[in-house]
Amino acid sequence: MPDQLRRLATALLESRGVEPRAAALQADLLVEAELRGLPSHGLQRLPLLLSRLEKGLADGRAQGAFKWSRQAFLGVDGERGLGPVVLMNAMQRLRQNLPETGIAVAAIRNANHIGMLAYYAEIAARQGLIAIVMSTSEALVHPFGGTEAMLGTNPVAIGIPAGERPFVLDLATSVVSMGKIRNHALRGVPIPPGWAVDAHGKPTEDPLAAQSGAIAPFGDAKGYGLGLAIELLVAALAGSALSPDVHGTLDDAHAANKGDLLVLIDPAAGKGAAPALTAYLDSLRLSRPLDPARPVAVPGDGARSRRAAAMAEGITLPQPLFEQLMALEAA
Amino acid sequence: MPDQLRRLATALLESRGVEPRAAALQADLLVEAELRGLPSHGLQRLPLLLSRLEKGLADGRAQGAFKWSRQAFLGVDGERGLGPVVLMNAMQRLRQNLPETGIAVAAIRNANHIGMLAYYAEIAARQGLIAIVMSTSEALVHPFGGTEAMLGTNPVAIGIPAGERPFVLDLATSVVSMGKIRNHALRGVPIPPGWAVDAHGKPTEDPLAAQSGAIAPFGDAKGYGLGLAIELLVAALAGSALSPDVHGTLDDAHAANKGDLLVLIDPAAGKGAAPALTAYLDSLRLSRPLDPARPVAVPGDGARSRRAAAMAEGITLPQPLFEQLMALEAA
Repeated sequence: MPDQLRRLATALLESRGVEPRAAALQADLLVEAELRGLPSHGLQRLPLLLSRLEKGLADGRAQGAFKWSRQAFLGVDGERGLGPVVLMNAMQRLRQNLPETGIAVAAIRNANHIGMLAYYAEIAARQGLIAIVMSTSEALVHPFGGTEAMLGTNPVAIGIPAGERPFVLDLATSVVSMGKIRNHALRGVPIPPGWAVDAHGKPTEDPLAAQSGAIAPFGDAKGYGLGLAIELLVAALAGSALSPDVHGTLDDAHAANKGDLLVLIDPAAGKGAAPALTAYLDSLRLSRPLDPARPVAVPGDGARSRRAAAMAEGITLPQPLFEQLMALEAA
Repeated sequence: MPDQLRRLATALLESRGVEPRAAALQADLLVEAELRGLPSHGLQRLPLLLSRLEKGLADGRAQGAFKWSRQAFLGVDGERGLGPVVLMNAMQRLRQNLPETGIAVAAIRNANHIGMLAYYAEIAARQGLIAIVMSTSEALVHPFGGTEAMLGTNPVAIGIPAGERPFVLDLATSVVSMGKIRNHALRGVPIPPGWAVDAHGKPTEDPLAAQSGAIAPFGDAKGYGLGLAIELLVAALAGSALSPDVHGTLDDAHAANKGDLLVLIDPAAGKGAAPALTAYLDSLRLSRPLDPARPVAVPGDGARSRRAAAMAEGITLPQPLFEQLMALEAA
C-alpha cells in the first residue's frame, strides 16, 4: 500500500514535469507523513503542489543554487524548487563540509514547502549527525498576550543519534495546527478553551470563528518566545519574508517566500558518548509513568510505532482525497 | 546601589582568590540578575559560590582550556573555573572565528554555574551577533507523562540583534523554577495544579511535597521534548554528565559536571536585513493585546523595563541575605 501510494504520487509529479529523482523524494516525504500518522503533511498536500507546478510556482527541475558565504555558512536560493529537493541537496553539502568545520548551517529562501520536518532530522540522525531544522509559514499564530495572527506556526525539528531509536523531535510552536481546528469544524465539535481567538480577538471555542482568527502559541510566553525566535532566526539568515508577508505554502497564487534553516553538527567533533545517550533514553522510557497504562515516551517513539502499525495494517486515506488523487491521475 | 553591590561581591570573590577581572565579571552577572528581577540567579547564589571557592570546587584563577577540534567547533575544558569567565572566554574565541566560518559552537564541560543565560545572549546581540546558549543542571524535572525527576531545568537563551531593543529570550524548560516553589513554601501558599508531583509521583499542590518530588516541563509534551533535546545536545557535544548524575550547581560538595553550549552566528553571513526585524518587532509590540492594559511584549522587553526601574529605585535585597553578605564581608 505505501509503495502503491508512492508510485501514484511519483507518477502525478512526473506528469507535471518533475524530474524522476525529485518526484520520488517528494512522494516519499508525503507517504512517510501518512505512515507516521501526520496526514496534515501527507498526500492531502499533493493536489495543491500539482497545481503549483502547473502554474510555474514550483519548478520540478530546480535543484537550488548554493553558495558558501563563509566556511560553515551555506546560502541557498531554492529557485522555486520542491522543498525536499532543495533541503536534501543542502544537507548533502553541509555533510560534506562537516569533517572540516564540525558544524554548518544552510539558510534557504525561495523553496517550496519542506513538509514534515522530522523526515530530515531522522535521516541525519540515522547517519550519525545532529540536525536542527526550522521553517517559517504564513501568519496564523498570535503573540502571547496578543490577539492578531502575527507569527507562523514556525516548527522546529531536532534529530540526535541514539542507537536504533534516535531522538526525533518535531513540534510546531502553535498550541495546535490549523488542520486540527479545521477538523473540529468538519466534525461540528467545539475546540478547547485556550486554542484560539476569533477575528475580533475574543477567545473562542467555535472552530469556524477560530479559522478567521488566530491560534495560540504553545506553552504561553515560553512557546511564544521560541516561535518568535524561529521567525527571526530564519528571516535574519535566509533573507526570507516575515510571516505577515509570507505566501505560497497554502495557496497556488504566490511564489513561496518563507524560509528554512538546517544546522548539522558532527557529534564526533565533541566529547560525548552515544551509548550513554541511548542508555539514558532507555531509562526515561522505563521511568515511572503518571498513568501505568501509558509508558513514558521519547520524541520519535510515537511516530515509529504508528509507522510500524501502518506498515502492517495499511494507510487509510479519506475517501474524498483518494477520489481526488484518482481523478488527477486520470486527467 | 548596584555599584555598591558590585563592589561588595567583587571584594568577597577576590578575598577567596578570584583574580580581579574574573571577580568583576562574576559580580556583574549576579547584580545584573538582581537588576532584571531574577533574584534566583542573583546575589543569593554568592554564599554558595564563595564556599565552593574555599573548598577548591571552583577555581578563581582558571580561564578554561580551549581546543578547536574542527574549524568551527571549540571544545572547552572549564578547569573548574567560574562559569561566566569560561563562557566569556569561549565567546571571545568564537567571535574571532566568525569572519571565517559564519557559525561556530563551543561545548563546555567542567565549568561552574553560568547563571542567567540572558546575560550572554544580550552581550552577543548588542555586538551584532546571534547567540544561542544552553545549559544543563541537576535532575529536577519529570518527563511528560512521567513522575520522576530525570531532566534538568535545561534553560536556553537566544539573542538576536534588533536595533536598540534586541530580542533576548531566556527560558527554563520547566513550567516553573524550584526557587519559586521554595518561595511558595516559605509563604505557606499552595502551588497551582500541574506544577509538580510529590516523591510518590502523585500530583501535588503542597510546595513542601513538591520539593522532594519533581517539577513538570513547560508546555506539556512539546516543552518536555525541547528540554530533553537540550539535555542530549549538551551531553553529546560537551561530554558532560546527564542530569541524573549532575552535581555541583546547587551544593558545595561536588565539582560541577553539567555542560554548557554556546552557538554564535554572524548575521552578516546571511541575507536578512536587521531593520526589517526591528520594524517587525515594533509591529508586534503595537499589535492588539488581549488585555488593553497589557501591551504585547517581545522577549527582553520585561527585563529591560525592570532594569530601568531598579536603576532608578534601587535593588531590594531580603534582609537575611543582606546580613549574610555583610557577615561574609566581615569574616
